[in-house]
Amino acid sequence: MRVCPGALGYFLDQWKECLLLALQHHFQEHLVSHPRTDQDQPCLASEASQQWYAGWYAVCEWRSPEQLKDLLDLELREGGEAHPQILQRCRDAIRYSVKTGHPLFFNQLYAGMDPYSLVGRFITEAINPSLYTYEVAPVFLLTEEAVLQKMIEIIGWQEGGDGIFSPGGSVSNMYAVNVARYHHCPDVKVLGLSALPRLVMFTSQECHYSVAKAAAFLGIGTNNVYVIPSDKRGKMIPAEFEKQVQRGALPFMVNATAGTTVLGAFDPLEEIADICERHNLWMHVDACWGGGALMSKKHRYLLQGIHRANSVAWNPHKMLMAGLQCCAFMVRDKTNLLQRCHSAQASYLFQQDKFYDVSYDTGDKSIQCSRKPDAFKFWLMWKAIGTKGLEERVDRALAMARYLAEEIKKRDGFRLVMEPEYTNVCFWYIPPSLRDMADGPDVCTTPYLQVAPVVKERMMKKGSMMVGYQPHGDKANFFRQIIISPQVSREDMDFLLDQIHSLGMDL
Amino acid sequence: MRVCPGALGYFLDQWKECLLLALQHHFQEHLVSHPRTDQDQPCLASEASQQWYAGWYAVCEWRSPEQLKDLLDLELREGGEAHPQILQRCRDAIRYSVKTGHPLFFNQLYAGMDPYSLVGRFITEAINPSLYTYEVAPVFLLTEEAVLQKMIEIIGWQEGGDGIFSPGGSVSNMYAVNVARYHHCPDVKVLGLSALPRLVMFTSQECHYSVAKAAAFLGIGTNNVYVIPSDKRGKMIPAEFEKQVQRGALPFMVNATAGTTVLGAFDPLEEIADICERHNLWMHVDACWGGGALMSKKHRYLLQGIHRANSVAWNPHKMLMAGLQCCAFMVRDKTNLLQRCHSAQASYLFQQDKFYDVSYDTGDKSIQCSRKPDAFKFWLMWKAIGTKGLEERVDRALAMARYLAEEIKKRDGFRLVMEPEYTNVCFWYIPPSLRDMADGPDVCTTPYLQVAPVVKERMMKKGSMMVGYQPHGDKANFFRQIIISPQVSREDMDFLLDQIHSLGMDL
Repeated sequence: MRVCPGALGYFLDQWKECLLLALQHHFQEHLVSHPRTDQDQPCLASEASQQWYAGWYAVCEWRSPEQLKDLLDLELREGGEAHPQILQRCRDAIRYSVKTGHPLFFNQLYAGMDPYSLVGRFITEAINPSLYTYEVAPVFLLTEEAVLQKMIEIIGWQEGGDGIFSPGGSVSNMYAVNVARYHHCPDVKVLGLSALPRLVMFTSQECHYSVAKAAAFLGIGTNNVYVIPSDKRGKMIPAEFEKQVQRGALPFMVNATAGTTVLGAFDPLEEIADICERHNLWMHVDACWGGGALMSKKHRYLLQGIHRANSVAWNPHKMLMAGLQCCAFMVRDKTNLLQRCHSAQASYLFQQDKFYDVSYDTGDKSIQCSRKPDAFKFWLMWKAIGTKGLEERVDRALAMARYLAEEIKKRDGFRLVMEPEYTNVCFWYIPPSLRDMADGPDVCTTPYLQVAPVVKERMMKKGSMMVGYQPHGDKANFFRQIIISPQVSREDMDFLLDQIHSLGMDL
Repeated sequence: MRVCPGALGYFLDQWKECLLLALQHHFQEHLVSHPRTDQDQPCLASEASQQWYAGWYAVCEWRSPEQLKDLLDLELREGGEAHPQILQRCRDAIRYSVKTGHPLFFNQLYAGMDPYSLVGRFITEAINPSLYTYEVAPVFLLTEEAVLQKMIEIIGWQEGGDGIFSPGGSVSNMYAVNVARYHHCPDVKVLGLSALPRLVMFTSQECHYSVAKAAAFLGIGTNNVYVIPSDKRGKMIPAEFEKQVQRGALPFMVNATAGTTVLGAFDPLEEIADICERHNLWMHVDACWGGGALMSKKHRYLLQGIHRANSVAWNPHKMLMAGLQCCAFMVRDKTNLLQRCHSAQASYLFQQDKFYDVSYDTGDKSIQCSRKPDAFKFWLMWKAIGTKGLEERVDRALAMARYLAEEIKKRDGFRLVMEPEYTNVCFWYIPPSLRDMADGPDVCTTPYLQVAPVVKERMMKKGSMMVGYQPHGDKANFFRQIIISPQVSREDMDFLLDQIHSLGMDL
């Protein structure tokens, strides 16, 4: 017997620098103390030290696609490269990547970092499992089941339910459409839609774009998604929904959104549930973003009525910081609907003559074959900080959003689009040259359209922070500030507003 | 300015033990020298050292679902746990997970480990990017593009093509169905299938089960998948295909399989392409498993004609060992079909007034919103070992499969199901008590049905190796041995056959 116990140490030594560099992107303790004003910058005489400074603190080090192609040397060749060159490839990849864990990254509906989740991901990447059967992924199927059952309990389905982790909220919403139509007409699996009357579904105008993608992909057709108007706060108007249900064809489901993408609005779930009961519709709640509020005793009223839904999509990789991807799709059904709707019973994988209880081979519930263990990192983090720790995180993010909204109201040249209910804080920045026009309804029109894109360009080229913007309905481009991470402080909120002003005051 | 440069070191110190443990699962240099006979076992007097031995060398440490639930303490509670407890959770998760990188893990269509891919995954997990837009994932969108273009070149589409990485080969096959039907009837995206005549598609009886899942999920219906008989070698019979095309309804695509799941068979692509041309059908090749052979000048003849396909699915996480998941879906089309077919143009994400060339914001080609950077690890590995290194890996795996097949022919009590073309080596083990019956056609029937499940149970409880089995058509359960990793040696092949005999000789 020959054993080489030094092999692991050798591996870690070889790649330690890269791992450290990569961890800098995530483990931001040193970045929490990043400089917030130009006066804070250290005195860096040489160009080299200035570069170091920029790379260390910037949210991103912007390069155009053409520049970056040159820098990375993307070409794949016949021969391999030596170790020092590969190390340089790793350094470059890390350097020019956006630091999504940076406290000033506010660009998407995920941000920040949790060290437990990260350790969980390192473990699962090293183990490289795939979740079809208990025999190859025992730990990861059981932890998935435990997480799903706890999430189902928190939703409030007292009789229990079923679920599966999926590669993204968009796919979860597709699951919802498929399960809803199968529930309505089980023949669809075998006969297809061409054997059925025209099916129609409902969603609000503020819903995520994946609802349209789902309708197209699943053969429903985007025209058969009836779009319900929302009120000024971005919430579906129930009376309009009921009107649309009576328009004919075969209505089978509604997608209610709990936490819309732009405004962070919550559809009125109780009223939607009443209408679904009256008309025998499947009620799906897309809580991919807003589901986090369920963890908070203080804020879960936003999703009042979610326990009446037939299915829920909820992404812990967003507000709860479980790391991309971590997306649960859950159904209240207890009759093995997921399995019946999606199974194909491959005999080479789901053998029925195995020596253990094959009800633990849950892979056939999924539309995937190989599937990543996305629940494990969340399970580990939950074990480490507890339900209470998750609750505190959510409460803190909502309090911070409230602080930012109040600051915006105090400052000249900033205007809230609406009072935030969740952590989407939407606002315009109005440069001094345009402020005379700012009191009328014109704030929504052309001159303002240019402000946010230019400010965004300048912040990215400086690397000082990243925040999203978009036009919305009749409203010109406004910033959408998303708050998630407990590493974000009030000083960061002040810095954000100062930066926007300093980057845009000349416009 | 306050900087805490010790933070990273602290992080690594805290979690080093876990990372090392997890890496043991992947970095198997010490396992290449695992003991292959009972005589090889070290003399371990104490129970503790015996446990250490078992955990160190076993492919898996089997526990039933009930036992494992107790061991893992799955419950999620109000309060969090202290660091030592969380470390123990990690140790347990690693210990009871199957070592998919172990040289004796032959259970699935992936195995082994590549250190470059693993480093790539550690980097991307730390950076936590999502691939919708260039602004948030510049490095990862460019490396994805570079990998896709190289794969397209290798397929042989001289005019180029387009592609996207997807979360699994099953999803890639779904992309194929959606793109094919959109190409055939672009109205389907808006109007849905209810506005169209009944669409039908074709695949062989040996295809992957995801084709049926795709037909169900996309609203085609499993009845509208016409199943073409295969020959004895598992290859689609072209004449039967052409017969089916003439059966009526609206045929729009065929799924040809290059590397079937059980037998490793390759459908005759040239002849299928001829039929597709005659009947104006979309030709999709599911080369998720067999695509690896394209890297080898010696073996790429197996996919002769793939350059005539309209779309190809190819998973480098399988034969090329890029780590789960790494799944490319590619189309020959150059008219932006992927974008047209799948886009929803969300204005909050795919703003058209950005300051850079937004054609690099490729996320709207996808059915996902958040999406993992699955191409990067493959790009890094390819850079490190070159096209030549990938070719050698494939050639070595096929040579090893040939060695195993020859060994099987030499040994009493073993019988090949067929000569392998790829690295699926399918065979029966016939215990001495049944050998008298083995010469007739009865080898396919009842008494043999029990052998493989019992041998599998015994090998898992011992932890000595993992190999799959299944019944197939009229054939009773046989073993399906998959060879991938360059860490697998001839001695491992001999060990496999010895083990099966020693575990099953009393049956």
